[in-house]
Amino acid sequence: MTTAKTRSRSAASKDNQGRVRAVIDAVIPSIDGGRFAVKRVAGEPVEIEAHCFTDGHDVLRVMLCWRPENEVAWQEAEMAPTGNDVWHAEFTPPAPGRYLYTATAWVDHFRSWRHELSRRVDADDIRIAAQVGAALLADTAARARGADQKALKDAGARLRREADSTADAEALKALALDDAVAAVAERYPDRRLATTHPVELPLVADRERARYSTWYELFPRSASPDPDRHGTFRDVEARLPYVAELGFDVLYFPPIHPIGREKRKGRDNALVAEPRDVGSPWAIGAKEGGHKSILPELGTPDDFRRLVAKARDMGIEVALDIAFQCAPDHPYVTEAPHWFRKRPDGSVQYAENPPKKYQDIYPFDFETEDWRALWAELKSIFDHWIAQGVNVYRVDNPHTKSFAFWEWVIAELKREHPDLIFLAEAFTRPKVMHRLAKLGYTQSYTYFTWRNTKHELTEYFTELSRGPGRQYFRPNVWPNTPDILNEHLHSGQRSVFMSRLVLAATLAASYGIYGPAYELMEHVPRSPGSEEYLHSEKYEQRHWNLDHPDSLRDFIARMNRIRRENPALHADGNLRFFGIDNDQLIAYAKSTPDAENVILTVVNLDPYHTQSGWLELDAQALGLDADLPYELHDLLSDQRFLWQGTRNFVILDPQRVPAHVFRLRRHMRREQDFDYFL
Amino acid sequence: MTTAKTRSRSAASKDNQGRVRAVIDAVIPSIDGGRFAVKRVAGEPVEIEAHCFTDGHDVLRVMLCWRPENEVAWQEAEMAPTGNDVWHAEFTPPAPGRYLYTATAWVDHFRSWRHELSRRVDADDIRIAAQVGAALLADTAARARGADQKALKDAGARLRREADSTADAEALKALALDDAVAAVAERYPDRRLATTHPVELPLVADRERARYSTWYELFPRSASPDPDRHGTFRDVEARLPYVAELGFDVLYFPPIHPIGREKRKGRDNALVAEPRDVGSPWAIGAKEGGHKSILPELGTPDDFRRLVAKARDMGIEVALDIAFQCAPDHPYVTEAPHWFRKRPDGSVQYAENPPKKYQDIYPFDFETEDWRALWAELKSIFDHWIAQGVNVYRVDNPHTKSFAFWEWVIAELKREHPDLIFLAEAFTRPKVMHRLAKLGYTQSYTYFTWRNTKHELTEYFTELSRGPGRQYFRPNVWPNTPDILNEHLHSGQRSVFMSRLVLAATLAASYGIYGPAYELMEHVPRSPGSEEYLHSEKYEQRHWNLDHPDSLRDFIARMNRIRRENPALHADGNLRFFGIDNDQLIAYAKSTPDAENVILTVVNLDPYHTQSGWLELDAQALGLDADLPYELHDLLSDQRFLWQGTRNFVILDPQRVPAHVFRLRRHMRREQDFDYFL
Repeated sequence: MTTAKTRSRSAASKDNQGRVRAVIDAVIPSIDGGRFAVKRVAGEPVEIEAHCFTDGHDVLRVMLCWRPENEVAWQEAEMAPTGNDVWHAEFTPPAPGRYLYTATAWVDHFRSWRHELSRRVDADDIRIAAQVGAALLADTAARARGADQKALKDAGARLRREADSTADAEALKALALDDAVAAVAERYPDRRLATTHPVELPLVADRERARYSTWYELFPRSASPDPDRHGTFRDVEARLPYVAELGFDVLYFPPIHPIGREKRKGRDNALVAEPRDVGSPWAIGAKEGGHKSILPELGTPDDFRRLVAKARDMGIEVALDIAFQCAPDHPYVTEAPHWFRKRPDGSVQYAENPPKKYQDIYPFDFETEDWRALWAELKSIFDHWIAQGVNVYRVDNPHTKSFAFWEWVIAELKREHPDLIFLAEAFTRPKVMHRLAKLGYTQSYTYFTWRNTKHELTEYFTELSRGPGRQYFRPNVWPNTPDILNEHLHSGQRSVFMSRLVLAATLAASYGIYGPAYELMEHVPRSPGSEEYLHSEKYEQRHWNLDHPDSLRDFIARMNRIRRENPALHADGNLRFFGIDNDQLIAYAKSTPDAENVILTVVNLDPYHTQSGWLELDAQALGLDADLPYELHDLLSDQRFLWQGTRNFVILDPQRVPAHVFRLRRHMRREQDFDYFL
Repeated sequence: MTTAKTRSRSAASKDNQGRVRAVIDAVIPSIDGGRFAVKRVAGEPVEIEAHCFTDGHDVLRVMLCWRPENEVAWQEAEMAPTGNDVWHAEFTPPAPGRYLYTATAWVDHFRSWRHELSRRVDADDIRIAAQVGAALLADTAARARGADQKALKDAGARLRREADSTADAEALKALALDDAVAAVAERYPDRRLATTHPVELPLVADRERARYSTWYELFPRSASPDPDRHGTFRDVEARLPYVAELGFDVLYFPPIHPIGREKRKGRDNALVAEPRDVGSPWAIGAKEGGHKSILPELGTPDDFRRLVAKARDMGIEVALDIAFQCAPDHPYVTEAPHWFRKRPDGSVQYAENPPKKYQDIYPFDFETEDWRALWAELKSIFDHWIAQGVNVYRVDNPHTKSFAFWEWVIAELKREHPDLIFLAEAFTRPKVMHRLAKLGYTQSYTYFTWRNTKHELTEYFTELSRGPGRQYFRPNVWPNTPDILNEHLHSGQRSVFMSRLVLAATLAASYGIYGPAYELMEHVPRSPGSEEYLHSEKYEQRHWNLDHPDSLRDFIARMNRIRRENPALHADGNLRFFGIDNDQLIAYAKSTPDAENVILTVVNLDPYHTQSGWLELDAQALGLDADLPYELHDLLSDQRFLWQGTRNFVILDPQRVPAHVFRLRRHMRREQDFDYFL
């Protein structure tokens, strides 16, 4: 791969347009014809494919062109044909930010001439071809400079002399095909008749955590060791070692702002709150302030910044919840009344989905004529928290706010802060979730919570890892959230909490849990079949016994350590399912591009019974020599197994551990490996 | 579906841009983001799909917008949601030509209000909603005119009065939801905040023969009844009843122009021609003229026009071969020498693909600086033959000429003559063939000739009928051509010639044969394994005994009559394969959209042995009630079979007829159908 900077890609002038014979049929990846950016990680190579050809037998040269969006000069990498008119090259975006890429191609007369000459056998044809080559070298010399120019001129003159004088066609052919001369000549191609793909395709390069992250959600108000005292940021600070021990790298809080008092909801979503009820953190805003303020009970801005800094020291980033909606007593309601819709009586229109009403929530009216000011103010909320050191945002229900706004605000914010990560909490219809990802969300919530059977999981994660969305939709999967206690968990079976965690942690490069509810296996719904937690923390302060002997903390810590130590688990596109003749068992593997790190996971989806089956591995996909034994090291149990061939027996008792997370070691030591064998 | 003309689609002004909440994520079909046109047939409905949604729960309205490319006014058809944010509408291009389509969508406050109101139960909410509705009706009235305006004004005023006075919420709700008022109001939507898909997608509407055509290729010079006399257009005229009897509707000739004498090839492609050798018709041009002239031996321009007219009277269109290349003695070579590449000695560069040389052919240099004149001259060749009444062109090796030229010339020609049909004879790599189809070719040659096994045929025709290419790539399949005598035919087995014909005629809506070689089962290759015919007509005049007792003419005539009478066989996208437990048997069906006409074909691919198997039909796909008997009428043998259930036995003896072409009759008369049963 050669890389050179050019100020502008060459392309045919209008007078030459009809002479252009190279065709670029496609540049891939491309989302909606370049309307949206593909997502990658800075420092990692991006593979680009172009479909190029020309009429007849002439030889093309194709260049991948790429640049940071805010620079003018293009960098180029020569693309290589890999068959079927597909050309490949890669580039590595050096830093987070937006990039553009495209391709340019031309019929290369020098290469065509060489290609034809190499196949010529007739002496007369070789002599004529040498004359043609001499002329081509003279033309090329005219485009070259300095020593190269002289070298090409000399080579051309010599070739012409020999063509006119020598009788030895083979010697003449060898002279004409001189590789050193060709190497110089190829630096000065005639690109006047080049074609350039008309679309400059956008790419967003994020930092690594956009691709691989492990989230822990907690309610700071429940972090107090004293059940009767409201938790504070200081309490959360004391909790950091626990979060670090469990192996999480993003610590996410529900909204930390003052909570509305008007129409406040009581415990278990009661319509009328008791005087001591703390309310829902998503009912944002009260006389103490709005989206840029902190609920006084939690602490001060200084406390918050201190917490953010302490967390960062422990490798943990604090993520905030951005919920663009207001409690009735939010200052915006009186300061900017035109940002809200009015009812005929002049009162503000609360959120509703008839016959349901949410009188404690005022949505913004994104159709307001004052949209520019509204957008600017909402952006300033992000700006405020960025200034406090927060670079990760979980956005609440983005699908109930204007899509145009999200595209604008994420682009604006990331222009200045390319390290920002936005997680879209949109549990809604598939096309809407995909649109939000296209518009700029770094990661997206998924349907994982509702995918429980082998068929459901296989189909869904195949779509996520192989479907067209893989270019822009980065799943972040959650076995539970404060809003979703899936029916699957209602039994409270330890095996289910373990298996769902293993599935999340191994199927997706990014996952999260809402804790300590998860590790303490909180599982009682508000009513049978409901997805709401009984005594939901959304409406009250809770106290959790982190040291409960049944806690899954050690299991989670081990699982997250396995993730950290095995880069195969840091990506989504490398997932591959394997057949196993038992519908209660699911098996899949992930491996690094160099196949050095391979993790094979087998999960028993039956929470009650031991299940066994024959697993059929794809030897080629795993780089296995099916004739040789290989070792599977179960990183959960630390057991080791020796397997051979592609078909092997697996048995899992859910009462112990419902999963194997194997690291595959392909190379078993054999007699040949010992010195004395040689 | 409502259709209305609008001069311009409404779209939000710059000041309103941020207020737009409707999203159009995709308009489908779309080829390469609108870079190329989809292909359809004039007079047939075109289904368009749009992916549209908005934030929250508001209701959208979505319009399909379409227009002929050369008109300004858009026509609109309201799109209807079909689930999963997919909206549908169709339009019917009235005449052949180019069209554009796109979609526009807006959050419709009137519909949103009605939708919410219909679900409201609280009396107070209904009263307030009625007030909101009264205001909406007043706004709508302001956009209306005449009687509609008065009706809306009155309805709004009445709703307001009742909202303020009545106590009966249900009566008020009914009044507010009045369907007649809504019908008027929906004609005057508020479209100020509409969004329009940014790409106007192109569509080419062709005439029906572009989709469904049956081709017969013959060499006019071999049409003489006297083996010693060169055939003429008059001889071809006499042959027309034969071609009509066989059921072909396109009669295609290899080039009819003067044939070069310089470097003329002899029989069986001999490098040196004998004095009496007639040469290859593709070596175009001699002192008598070039691409606009007729080989004098064939007749005069009058003879040609007469033949074209006589053919047309019999429902047959004459198609010409356009081969843009020159014999060394073509007049262009001296008149426009700069359209050809030169060798160092000043001679014209002949075609070559080293070490192969084609010294009888001079290709045009599409990189010539005089490309504008070259393009114009080549276009004028089409213009010339269009003026002689020819509307169908088979283009020889288009992939060895500039792609940009084809896009230009086909668009230019079809702008004036939208009835033109261009068939691309490109047997080359898949992406190149697809590009030519995208650039404007109406039909394309395929790999059918080399697809012989059940697996090959199933895979290839599934791709052709279901793959993305179905939007623009119309296959025209040929069991043989003068260039391709596939090895499969070398045995000369009658059963192979029959089965390949049935496959071509039933798998593809357009197919052709090179005759009389095909019906006379000409099958001897120039050398074993070669795809060239021995004594190829390309290089010599042949004489064919059309009345040979072994001729397949009656079989072909029957097959083409079956095609004509069964519209299911006139389309490509309706193909569906069925399982059959014998790899030598292949089974598939096509049906019309209304499922009235269903053709089920079963072919024995083994030329030597009787094969039988159990066929598994998809009852749902065929609209069968698996509990009732149904009739299969074999249109080839005129036999009838009564089947029941989805699994039935098939047996085919290739020594008789190697295929069934069944018409399926679903409804068998039963006792209930007789009068006395009632």
